[in-house]
Amino acid sequence: MNVKAVLNTLGKISLVEGILIVLPLMVSLLYGEMSGAAAFAATIAISAATGGFLLLLTKNHNHLIYAKEGFAIVAGVWILISLIGALPFRFSGVIPHYVDAVFETVSGFTTTGASIIEDVEAISKGMLFWRSFTHFIGGMGFLVFVMAIIPNVTDRSIHILKAEVPGPNVGKIVPKIKDTAKILYLIYIAITAVEIVLLVLGGMPLFDSIVHSFATAGTGGFGIKSDSISSYSPYCQWVIGIFMMLFGVNFNIYYLILIKRFKDIMKSSELWVYISIAFCSTAVITFNNIEIYKRISLSVRHSFFQVSSIMTTTGFATADFDRWGGLPKTILLTLMFIGACAGSTGGGLKVSRVIMLFKIISREIRRLLHPRAVTSIHFEGKKVDENTIGGVSHYFAIYMICFVAAFLLISFEPFGIETNISATAACFNNIGPGLDLVGPTMNYSAYSYFSKIVLSAAMLLGRLEIFPIIIAFSPSVWKNA
Amino acid sequence: MNVKAVLNTLGKISLVEGILIVLPLMVSLLYGEMSGAAAFAATIAISAATGGFLLLLTKNHNHLIYAKEGFAIVAGVWILISLIGALPFRFSGVIPHYVDAVFETVSGFTTTGASIIEDVEAISKGMLFWRSFTHFIGGMGFLVFVMAIIPNVTDRSIHILKAEVPGPNVGKIVPKIKDTAKILYLIYIAITAVEIVLLVLGGMPLFDSIVHSFATAGTGGFGIKSDSISSYSPYCQWVIGIFMMLFGVNFNIYYLILIKRFKDIMKSSELWVYISIAFCSTAVITFNNIEIYKRISLSVRHSFFQVSSIMTTTGFATADFDRWGGLPKTILLTLMFIGACAGSTGGGLKVSRVIMLFKIISREIRRLLHPRAVTSIHFEGKKVDENTIGGVSHYFAIYMICFVAAFLLISFEPFGIETNISATAACFNNIGPGLDLVGPTMNYSAYSYFSKIVLSAAMLLGRLEIFPIIIAFSPSVWKNA
Repeated sequence: MNVKAVLNTLGKISLVEGILIVLPLMVSLLYGEMSGAAAFAATIAISAATGGFLLLLTKNHNHLIYAKEGFAIVAGVWILISLIGALPFRFSGVIPHYVDAVFETVSGFTTTGASIIEDVEAISKGMLFWRSFTHFIGGMGFLVFVMAIIPNVTDRSIHILKAEVPGPNVGKIVPKIKDTAKILYLIYIAITAVEIVLLVLGGMPLFDSIVHSFATAGTGGFGIKSDSISSYSPYCQWVIGIFMMLFGVNFNIYYLILIKRFKDIMKSSELWVYISIAFCSTAVITFNNIEIYKRISLSVRHSFFQVSSIMTTTGFATADFDRWGGLPKTILLTLMFIGACAGSTGGGLKVSRVIMLFKIISREIRRLLHPRAVTSIHFEGKKVDENTIGGVSHYFAIYMICFVAAFLLISFEPFGIETNISATAACFNNIGPGLDLVGPTMNYSAYSYFSKIVLSAAMLLGRLEIFPIIIAFSPSVWKNA
Repeated sequence: MNVKAVLNTLGKISLVEGILIVLPLMVSLLYGEMSGAAAFAATIAISAATGGFLLLLTKNHNHLIYAKEGFAIVAGVWILISLIGALPFRFSGVIPHYVDAVFETVSGFTTTGASIIEDVEAISKGMLFWRSFTHFIGGMGFLVFVMAIIPNVTDRSIHILKAEVPGPNVGKIVPKIKDTAKILYLIYIAITAVEIVLLVLGGMPLFDSIVHSFATAGTGGFGIKSDSISSYSPYCQWVIGIFMMLFGVNFNIYYLILIKRFKDIMKSSELWVYISIAFCSTAVITFNNIEIYKRISLSVRHSFFQVSSIMTTTGFATADFDRWGGLPKTILLTLMFIGACAGSTGGGLKVSRVIMLFKIISREIRRLLHPRAVTSIHFEGKKVDENTIGGVSHYFAIYMICFVAAFLLISFEPFGIETNISATAACFNNIGPGLDLVGPTMNYSAYSYFSKIVLSAAMLLGRLEIFPIIIAFSPSVWKNA
């Protein structure tokens, strides 16, 4: 393991985070929130000191990195930015306990949106901005962002890109990593900007529009009202509902739109399955909810919004879906696991993995019937190689095992199984709200610090798709350090 | 598809079932239960007629069968014996509705033990005997039994054995199929006989000893008291608790004991992991339950019994574990999925599959770090071939998908998620009691007929390890019929 290269990257990231925190500092100053501004300033000083120290320590390091360094960097960076990013909450006293602050920050960066804050409306603007901004940074990936802006990005960084961008099969859009990162971020910023404009046009205050667009873009879900999005106009709810779906799409699709390769878009089975699942789920839930909402238009709006919010793993709410019937709740719980498309900002298993799992199973059945027949799997018009096939079903296995492990660990809590299973699902799949005691009108403050640490780990495992965290913490990787 | 060969086997099975029903008929006569006896007699007539008709229809059929015929035979046989086996309950009026009777019978044959009977103590001896006898027949497999007794068993029947005996890698114990089937059944009957004797010695009435031993042997769980095993002596509870564990062991182990190959037993990692999981779960739950039971010996007994009952997927209860804390309940829910050893009468994923999943995952991590390294997986001292490895993780995927599908289908019910998820898990893994409304002191009568059919299908899918049922119902298999 090239420890120096890992630490060097951590140092750079620390400096970048310090620079990014200047933004919420400015917001605090703008609103005259002095205690918030002081907390941000202190955090900037700490990140600068940490960054400077790490860079000094690793002067003249060897730049060669391989897969394991890639995983270690990604795991290390996400833990470091969370530990630093939690400081403003702690310093300002908004969140008195550091574990709580870390939970909230991990939840922000991993775009989960699970909160321990009991009264979000009591919090200062600067802190609210920082909270939502973590969604925006985490959504497309902190390291992808850094790759887009810093010079000297070698093609070895593909190991970092692969470890940070979700999905079974990460590739470069264009030959150069740096350009790929830039294109991803430009698309990301552009769609976010459109959403902000549409919300402002709909009468939402500018500050609200910006923070909600950040949370939509990262498919995060932190809001600034106790009732999430419920009190905004139906127009704003539709805008956010549709933009959540847009951010759940594989960003390659937007690149294909930019370069006008519309035929390739038509061929993307992931996109069509994603849309179909959302459509069918909305239809079934709308039908089931008519009794509650009386008017069909109201039922459509709430049902679509919640389906879009849960499937893209955002976690906004316009209605208390914990009070819906058994079938809608079970569909939502299932959508939590399916998640959004690969290469999007959403979490979960990813639609493409689910499609591949079905293809793998149907091949398995063919194999049982004709043991000697040679069969291959095609996806999006291409033949899938056996390593990727194995990777998908093995990933599913480790995914379920991690889920069960986290579920077991938080079962020390005196809550029911519905609460604990949905809390684990909501954190692990980076959604935010679960059911029952962690439903959309509730929060995670009742959990013990132990459980909060477990759930924070679950959020990181979910966001980074498990392997980077496990690899970074497996002793064998560090043996030859 | 060689339809005639399939129908011919179904005809033979129908006759065998008719003969087996003579046993409960005799029990009814012995206890002077005339309406029960009439119901059994009518059922025997119907099975004889069905069997005779099918055999006449398929005279001079081609005996050649392949994998797909094996799957179709197994699926067909299990459905047929359940449809016929349900008749006595319906005819005698013990269970007024046929769907309920089928649910109860499927639950019996698949050794699930989920019941829709509200007052089991009001039922006649003959019916209770038949109900428990279905566990005994289903446990080791109806077709394995038939193979052991009928002449002309060719080695092509390996396709049937493979489809009926649970586990990732079914083989013959001895070169000849017929001998393998005989050995399995002899071991099975011998251990059951020992249990009956031990229970009688402990003061349990003979009838009770027999039916409880049948239910233990098949890891079924149908009892004859409303409170399951709670009212029997601690000695009897320990005997049943230990015998459940014994029937959860791979039967190859007993064969190895018979031929004195003790060294091979020591090498069986599945056995040791199975024992370790049971031991650790018992320890944790005992510790958690001390508050409830005050005395450590009481806590050990109840905790061990429930762990043994759930892990072996039997489903007997000595305590209402639905009233235990969150951690014990979550451990039990997890044990439901792990299940017993491959090649035992228990259900679930099977310990060997869980071990292999962990090995596959650890190899996947090694592969990510060293993409070009060649790595193989060893299990029980042998190298596992890539097809088996793929089979295990693909099986896990289809297993989870079937689970979610069944869970979604029963979510139309107005019950909570804890009830529905545990009902699905308890049926799919052939356990019996779940949590909340289907907890150990409750039953499944509240579910609609639609849900009962779904859960019956889930029991069959679980018992036959999914593929036979799916293959038998996939149109492509029947195309060239």
